[in-house]
Amino acid sequence: MSVQEIKIGDLNPHAFIEEQCELISSQVGDSKAVNALSGGVDSSVTTILAHRALGPRLITYFIDNGLMREGEPESVVSAMRNLGVPVVLVDSRNDFFSALRGKTDPEQKRQAITDTFYETVFGRLVRESGALYLLQGTIYTDVEETVAGIKRQHNILAQLGIDTEELYGYKVIEPLIQLRKPGVRAVGKALGMPEKMYNRPPFPGPALVARVIGEANPERIALVRKATVVVEEELAGAGAFQYMAILHEDRVTGMRGGKREYGLQIEVRCWDSEDAVTASPTPLPFDLLLKLAGRLTSEVPGVVSVTYNVAAKPPSTIEAI
Amino acid sequence: MSVQEIKIGDLNPHAFIEEQCELISSQVGDSKAVNALSGGVDSSVTTILAHRALGPRLITYFIDNGLMREGEPESVVSAMRNLGVPVVLVDSRNDFFSALRGKTDPEQKRQAITDTFYETVFGRLVRESGALYLLQGTIYTDVEETVAGIKRQHNILAQLGIDTEELYGYKVIEPLIQLRKPGVRAVGKALGMPEKMYNRPPFPGPALVARVIGEANPERIALVRKATVVVEEELAGAGAFQYMAILHEDRVTGMRGGKREYGLQIEVRCWDSEDAVTASPTPLPFDLLLKLAGRLTSEVPGVVSVTYNVAAKPPSTIEAI
Repeated sequence: MSVQEIKIGDLNPHAFIEEQCELISSQVGDSKAVNALSGGVDSSVTTILAHRALGPRLITYFIDNGLMREGEPESVVSAMRNLGVPVVLVDSRNDFFSALRGKTDPEQKRQAITDTFYETVFGRLVRESGALYLLQGTIYTDVEETVAGIKRQHNILAQLGIDTEELYGYKVIEPLIQLRKPGVRAVGKALGMPEKMYNRPPFPGPALVARVIGEANPERIALVRKATVVVEEELAGAGAFQYMAILHEDRVTGMRGGKREYGLQIEVRCWDSEDAVTASPTPLPFDLLLKLAGRLTSEVPGVVSVTYNVAAKPPSTIEAI
Repeated sequence: MSVQEIKIGDLNPHAFIEEQCELISSQVGDSKAVNALSGGVDSSVTTILAHRALGPRLITYFIDNGLMREGEPESVVSAMRNLGVPVVLVDSRNDFFSALRGKTDPEQKRQAITDTFYETVFGRLVRESGALYLLQGTIYTDVEETVAGIKRQHNILAQLGIDTEELYGYKVIEPLIQLRKPGVRAVGKALGMPEKMYNRPPFPGPALVARVIGEANPERIALVRKATVVVEEELAGAGAFQYMAILHEDRVTGMRGGKREYGLQIEVRCWDSEDAVTASPTPLPFDLLLKLAGRLTSEVPGVVSVTYNVAAKPPSTIEAI
C-alpha cells in the first residue's frame, strides 16, 4: 500500500484544505472535472472541497440509482444547492436494477453496481461532459480493507492496479485518501459544512443493496427502505456510529391473525466505533429493541421476525454483505 | 376441535394420573403398547404415566435420529432407566439423514421426519413388537396450533383426520392432550419425576432440524449442535421458558485474521412465556449477549455473526421453522 495515512493528531484541517485545493486545481488546470455526490460524508466533503478548488470547472452529479434511502436523492441535492454547490440529478434507476436482476452473490452485486456506475452511467456522463478528471471520496480505511481483501470498495480502482484512464477515459483524484473518518469529519467542519452533513452516519457505496441478502430487486429494496426509515427514526438519538436494517433472504415461520405465515426477517445492527476498523454492538435499552421489532413487524409488509446483531467486528463486519 | 381443555386451576394431578392410568390400562387390555421417548417433558411424562399404567405391557423406544442435542440420547435413556423404566435405544440416524437429504422447505423437512418416524422406523418397530397401541405426548397447544394452521406438529394425526390404524396399523393414545405445558409439569411432579426432568425447557419434535434453516445434513446439524451447547450453558440460569440457537442459511460477510470470510450466522432466541401461546424475548443483560456472541464465533467453525431475536410471538413463532 503506497498511500501514507495522516493521523488525526497530525491533521491541520485548514492547512489540509488549502493544500488539497491547490493540488486539485493545478492537476485539473483548464480542463473540467466531474464527481458523483452520494450524500455520504466522504463524497460530500469531496464535493465541497472540489467546488472550492474548481468552481465552475467542476460538474457534480447525483446519480439516483434507485438504491437510496427514502427521500434521499431530493434531500441530498437540495442540501448541497443550499451551500451554493450546483448538482445535476440523474435518474439511472433502470440501469442499476437491470444490472442487478437475478444476482444474489455479494461480489456480483457489488460488481454490477461498479460496472453500471462507471461504464454505463458515469462513462456516458463523463464523455458528454468532456471532463478528464474524476474526483472520488475514497478514504484510508477503504484502501486498507480492499487491499486486505475484506471488502471490495467500489472506489479504489487505482489501488487495485486498474488504469481508469485506459479503461474509462479519465483520471481519478482522491483528495481524502490519507484520512480516516474522524479526519474527514474535521475537514468537513473546517469547510463550514452543517454538522448534520459532516457527522452523518456512514452509508455504504452500494447503498441499500448492501442491506439486502439475496437479489436486490425493486420490491426488496422498497422493503429494506421502509425498514431503514424505522431504524433511523428510532436510533438517531442513540449516539451510535452507524445503524442499519438488513433484509434477510432466509424465510422464517411466523403467525398473523392466528394463521401461519412463512415470512421475512429484518436484522438490525447498531455499532459503537471510532473509525469502523473495529466496532461493537451498541448496548441499546431492551425496551427500544422491542419497540423497533414491534414497528418493523407492523410497518414493513411480510416481516414476522426481527433480530439485533450482538457480534463485534471482527469477526463480523459492519455491513452484512 | 373436539378435545376439551383442562385448565390448570381445575387440574388435580393425582386424580388425573389415576384416571389416565385406568383409561390407558383398560384400553390396552392384554395387548401391548409402545411409545417413543424423546426426552422432552411431554414424552417423559407420557412414558412414566404409561409405565405406571402398563408395566411390562409397555415398550419404550428412544430413537436416535441423529438430530438430538449433544449427549442427549445417552442422558435421556439413563435418566429414565434410573427411574426404573426400561428403554430400548434404536440407532436410526441414517434413515433420517437419508430422508432429509436435499430438502430445504420447512414443511418438507417436517414431513420427511414424520414419514421416517412413523413409516420407516416406528412402523417397523411396532410390527416387530406386535403392539396395537401407540402412546404419544401430544398436548393441547399442539392441537390448537395445528388446527389453526400455524405449525404442523408431528404427533396429532387423529386431529387431522388421519386414521393411524388404517395407515400404520396401530391406535394412538394421547393421555396429555387436554393439558397445556404447566399442567403437564404438575403431572410430572406428582409422578415423582426429578424437577430437572419435568421443568426441562421445551424442545421441538423435529429436534435440531427445527434449528437449521435450509438443508439439515449431518454437517449443519453438527454446527447447530455445538451452538446449542454454548447457548444452553450460558442461558440455563436465565430463568427463561425456552432458549435456542438457530443456524441460518444466509451467508454474511465477516473477517478473520484480517481476511474477508463469507461466513455463517447464528440467531439466538430466548423466550419468556407461560404456555408458548404468546411469548416475548427475554431481556438478557447485554454483557451476556456479547459473551454468547464471542463464544459462538470462536467455538462454532465458520460462524462470523450472531443475532438475538427481539420480536414477540405473535407475529414471530418460538421456533424459526
